[in-house]
Amino acid sequence: MLYVIGLGLGDVKDITVKGLEIVKRCEFIYLESYTSILTCGKDEMEKFYEKEIILADRDFVEQEADIMLNHAETKEVAFLVVGDPFSATTHTDLIIRAKERGIKYQVIHNASIMNAVGSCGLQLYHFGETISIPFWTDTWKPDSFYDKLKANRKNNLHTLCLLDIKVKEPTLESMTKKKKEYMPPRFMNVSEAANQLLQIIESKKEEEDESLAYDENTLFIGLARIGHESQRIVACSLKEMKDCDLGPPLHSLVLPSNNMHELEKEYVQQFSEKPL
Amino acid sequence: MLYVIGLGLGDVKDITVKGLEIVKRCEFIYLESYTSILTCGKDEMEKFYEKEIILADRDFVEQEADIMLNHAETKEVAFLVVGDPFSATTHTDLIIRAKERGIKYQVIHNASIMNAVGSCGLQLYHFGETISIPFWTDTWKPDSFYDKLKANRKNNLHTLCLLDIKVKEPTLESMTKKKKEYMPPRFMNVSEAANQLLQIIESKKEEEDESLAYDENTLFIGLARIGHESQRIVACSLKEMKDCDLGPPLHSLVLPSNNMHELEKEYVQQFSEKPL
Repeated sequence: MLYVIGLGLGDVKDITVKGLEIVKRCEFIYLESYTSILTCGKDEMEKFYEKEIILADRDFVEQEADIMLNHAETKEVAFLVVGDPFSATTHTDLIIRAKERGIKYQVIHNASIMNAVGSCGLQLYHFGETISIPFWTDTWKPDSFYDKLKANRKNNLHTLCLLDIKVKEPTLESMTKKKKEYMPPRFMNVSEAANQLLQIIESKKEEEDESLAYDENTLFIGLARIGHESQRIVACSLKEMKDCDLGPPLHSLVLPSNNMHELEKEYVQQFSEKPL
Repeated sequence: MLYVIGLGLGDVKDITVKGLEIVKRCEFIYLESYTSILTCGKDEMEKFYEKEIILADRDFVEQEADIMLNHAETKEVAFLVVGDPFSATTHTDLIIRAKERGIKYQVIHNASIMNAVGSCGLQLYHFGETISIPFWTDTWKPDSFYDKLKANRKNNLHTLCLLDIKVKEPTLESMTKKKKEYMPPRFMNVSEAANQLLQIIESKKEEEDESLAYDENTLFIGLARIGHESQRIVACSLKEMKDCDLGPPLHSLVLPSNNMHELEKEYVQQFSEKPL
């Protein structure tokens, strides 16, 4: 039996009562550790569960997941996922693989940034397509998500921007070696995201005749560690967001629609130093 | 202190460990009971919490919430909400009122249909704007959400359709009386929703020259009691959905994009009797 259990967003106690009961009785407990992170570490989780945890990084999920599924054929196995189990395609893929092998599974849902983003006061049903902003390199600066931002703005919808996470990325030098070496983990913050968004708009200014999706004075909302006690939300212009330090990860960014409802505006106001 | 606590989607044990700890120590516990329901009743919850629960219906939240906030000025008060606290505008409004009165508050997140809809295998970041399908009456048949469905399809996005709930609606006859009488609660099922969607497309056929958002053979996904053990998901044509009985509430409906990714299709296939 495979249990895919959402951990929510904050700390160890954001697991559901049902989820915790299952963890307590499972023989193997894996923690998916490369698409997201909790504010607490593995040690704290092991202490809370009174169980040993096996870290499942990118290599594991892509190559060694079969070992976990072997266990699940005869034993109770928990696969823990930060947020909700269906927040990443790799987890959907894992469930398909379990199903193909005739292994029973159960999903325990939890909050994820996809619904907890409501904390900023914008109504969830006014959000359009979610976008992901990847880390740029010197030679690779993708901006295809700009068109989605623009489409959402045109349709008077808010946009949730998920910010890139790089965990256990092999160094370029080690790619050809037998023993891979890894770069330190990186989590994009709202300042880095704002910086990239400003660069995109500069190049679009030159290309486009028509109206732009946003400019440096457009209101954005920065979110950090949503669901945790140390949660921070700031509403300011994109220009100001570039100089904004919201502390440790995870961060996300929201581009509100041009046409916020009164109640939305009233709620967002508390996060802004200036009148909206 | 006001705690606004999400209960998740299934039964009593879908509350988080943090949420349960707070409920256990609160002096007053209110349950918001008109925008959604759990699969368990108040009695079962009271037994599980070992606490008395006060039902907060529409009249309460709109008119008597001040009494609750009075308590929260000096005591620990829990306001329980099915799903996530930010799933309905009334809860956002409540938090604003608490803030205005200088009452401290804390939000405990949980799963809601807005993210648990991922259970059907469609990726959350491929969803466009969410729509709500209201109960029609003989004289009131709104269909303004059709344009949103159409926009999402055009942009290759999935659409989550939330289905109407009528709880503690006063009868028309009692509206003018001192003592209100209420209609029995009603929860729209996927069959009723499909029926309305078919009627809309019939009238649009006559009006429109251009392509329609869907037709009777378009694939829809019906979802019932997501997150609960008795959860059911069915993928079939709209015409077939009209004759589909997914059992007790709550139900929702999804219109997938015309352009599902391979992994999405593979996952959805398990809910369909025919090859997709």
